[in-house]
Amino acid sequence: MAEINQNFQKLPGSYLFAEIARRTAAYQAANPDKKLIKMGIGDVTRPLAPSVIRAMHKAVDEMGSADTFMGYGPYEGYDFLRDAIVQHDYAARGVTMSREEIFVSDGAKSDCGNIGDIFSVNNVVAVCDPVYPVYVDANAMAGRAGEYDGEKWTNIVYMPCTAENGFVPALPERVPDLIYLCFPNNPTGMAATKDQLKLWVDYANEHGSVILYDSAYEAFIRDPEIPHSIYEVPGARTCAIEFRSYSKTAGFTGTRCAYTIIPKELKVNGVSLAELWLRRQSTKYNGCPYMIQRGAEAIYTPEGQQEVRETIDYYLNNAAIIREGLAKAGLTVYGGVNSPYVWAATPDGMGSWDFFDRLLQEGNVVTTPGAGFGPSGEGYIRLTGFGDPENTKEAIRRITRML
Amino acid sequence: MAEINQNFQKLPGSYLFAEIARRTAAYQAANPDKKLIKMGIGDVTRPLAPSVIRAMHKAVDEMGSADTFMGYGPYEGYDFLRDAIVQHDYAARGVTMSREEIFVSDGAKSDCGNIGDIFSVNNVVAVCDPVYPVYVDANAMAGRAGEYDGEKWTNIVYMPCTAENGFVPALPERVPDLIYLCFPNNPTGMAATKDQLKLWVDYANEHGSVILYDSAYEAFIRDPEIPHSIYEVPGARTCAIEFRSYSKTAGFTGTRCAYTIIPKELKVNGVSLAELWLRRQSTKYNGCPYMIQRGAEAIYTPEGQQEVRETIDYYLNNAAIIREGLAKAGLTVYGGVNSPYVWAATPDGMGSWDFFDRLLQEGNVVTTPGAGFGPSGEGYIRLTGFGDPENTKEAIRRITRML
Repeated sequence: MAEINQNFQKLPGSYLFAEIARRTAAYQAANPDKKLIKMGIGDVTRPLAPSVIRAMHKAVDEMGSADTFMGYGPYEGYDFLRDAIVQHDYAARGVTMSREEIFVSDGAKSDCGNIGDIFSVNNVVAVCDPVYPVYVDANAMAGRAGEYDGEKWTNIVYMPCTAENGFVPALPERVPDLIYLCFPNNPTGMAATKDQLKLWVDYANEHGSVILYDSAYEAFIRDPEIPHSIYEVPGARTCAIEFRSYSKTAGFTGTRCAYTIIPKELKVNGVSLAELWLRRQSTKYNGCPYMIQRGAEAIYTPEGQQEVRETIDYYLNNAAIIREGLAKAGLTVYGGVNSPYVWAATPDGMGSWDFFDRLLQEGNVVTTPGAGFGPSGEGYIRLTGFGDPENTKEAIRRITRML
Repeated sequence: MAEINQNFQKLPGSYLFAEIARRTAAYQAANPDKKLIKMGIGDVTRPLAPSVIRAMHKAVDEMGSADTFMGYGPYEGYDFLRDAIVQHDYAARGVTMSREEIFVSDGAKSDCGNIGDIFSVNNVVAVCDPVYPVYVDANAMAGRAGEYDGEKWTNIVYMPCTAENGFVPALPERVPDLIYLCFPNNPTGMAATKDQLKLWVDYANEHGSVILYDSAYEAFIRDPEIPHSIYEVPGARTCAIEFRSYSKTAGFTGTRCAYTIIPKELKVNGVSLAELWLRRQSTKYNGCPYMIQRGAEAIYTPEGQQEVRETIDYYLNNAAIIREGLAKAGLTVYGGVNSPYVWAATPDGMGSWDFFDRLLQEGNVVTTPGAGFGPSGEGYIRLTGFGDPENTKEAIRRITRML
């Protein structure tokens, strides 16, 4: 008789964003005349760049003609895209990367979850707290998390990110085997410096741990001192896998393209992780659509670079409005500089779900309660810069009036 | 210290198609003047249908405008596509299916592999022999296959498909928990009747096994008596998951779209498998690109249906040329009627790799040796109808001359 994977039964029932949607819908149903402003979910709103649109039209046409039709592509992505990544995302920042170390995919979320396939289920996983829920849930499904006690998983190492440590966690006492790091961070919006990452790289190399570095928000970095890639830190090639995404970089949340870097030097017990990942991908994945990869390639043209930069400036401007507005209103705020996310402390130590409810009911603004990202998120809310400037300003006016 | 998933180390080194590519390249390098005809790999060659191209252009334009831009889509696919599937792939054949039972994805290969996430690693897996290698390798990676003895995995139940049983396997003595079936079959090209599938459905319901039914080639069925879906068989809704793909149906091998059906009634120990799969997909996947789903939707328009049918007729015509030509040349052939694949017995009981080499070197035709698909594939080769008629005829002439 078939048996299910019992780890699924351990997952807590309500997913953060589902609970937010539930409360929001209930309030809106009871108050149909209220105009809500949604500053919760991290989806983009601006259209794809004209260069991307042109490239995708051309690629679609190629698929319609026998001479230029493309069937199965390489599991690891087309060389035209991998070469553009090497040149623009790495060489341009002084980092040497080779085409063979780049694995194009349909999303950093898929890769962050699926990467677990190549590691032992006995590996101990560490995550920042608060954290993007996918790292935890994917490992819980695989059996690496232990039991859920209503707040934490018994076998996950939670690394508190607090105002005291500048939201960059301290090295944990219990040495983890796999360490998820995400900078600029979701949800706190805080970036890490080279010196801060160097501590982690040295720690991982010393203990034989592997860092899973989520760099999905690197395009929002404007401070020249902040590294965009963990490979800007010496020693990272022997201990780190990096996840990049076009979702936030170029508005690809509904278009789906990302890539993962596994350096040649990264080995566990002498086994190349890049080779294991290629085996995994060639068995359980069949490549990212041709037209989508052509769209991603166009981001790297001079026009494409200019266009996506303008869109990110637009979101960063919103983040600055939130950051400065809430600070003026008396809240303590973090992030929102090299990131689309603003992380705001609740007033008077109020619980984050309570503040969420107050903002919803009194301000008609939908946010994300920090507690939904983990125990150390309690006492914070997350707001995002993905709206438009008018609504963003109006939300800040409403919150200011409320406080 | 991190540890790898040791199951990867058990996988045999050389993947079938890599070995074919190696031998082919070696021969071509030594004989640069020879013009090879490739009848091995199962990739399509005809362009996407004009209806699909038009729909994708429209969707790309939508992504370029703020009013119509699409961000994150539903994990399980857009309703416009799911509803088209309900109507055209199921209702049109008298099968009731609801939108909620359909999970759109980037490929049947991904789904056939990833579906393992929701099942216990202790489940025993059965596969047809010969078999599409993905079912076996994905389960070997997950730890369900035991050890590889050089020919077989110790914990996989192999179900021989032979000329004697019409290439539809007998019910196995050791009861498996998960049963992969694929009809019309890759590699044998043979289809299963309703009565043959009914035996499997009853067996699975009796034993609490789950059938993983790969129906990727259903569009090639021309015999009205052959079922396109396992749900045409009474009882299948309580025991079967079905995988469908647009790869061969509409030339989407490089475009990537597929779907998986999990009926509401399908439960294991009272747990809905559809709910587990949605949890898996929402955690480790982020949906199929909007423009790709719009392209898939266009297949179901009257023009789209006509266009994809013409393309499939083109491939079926090639398969008929192969089937009839090889039979005339004295080989015993199977498949090639409701399938793009022809499965031909080697002459005089020759080994399949030996016959592969002879065809390559004397006929300059690249085929796929049956032994690459499993022990019972020994003594056969696979040829595909995905080429063009002229090359297909020339290949048959060369083989006929050789024999």
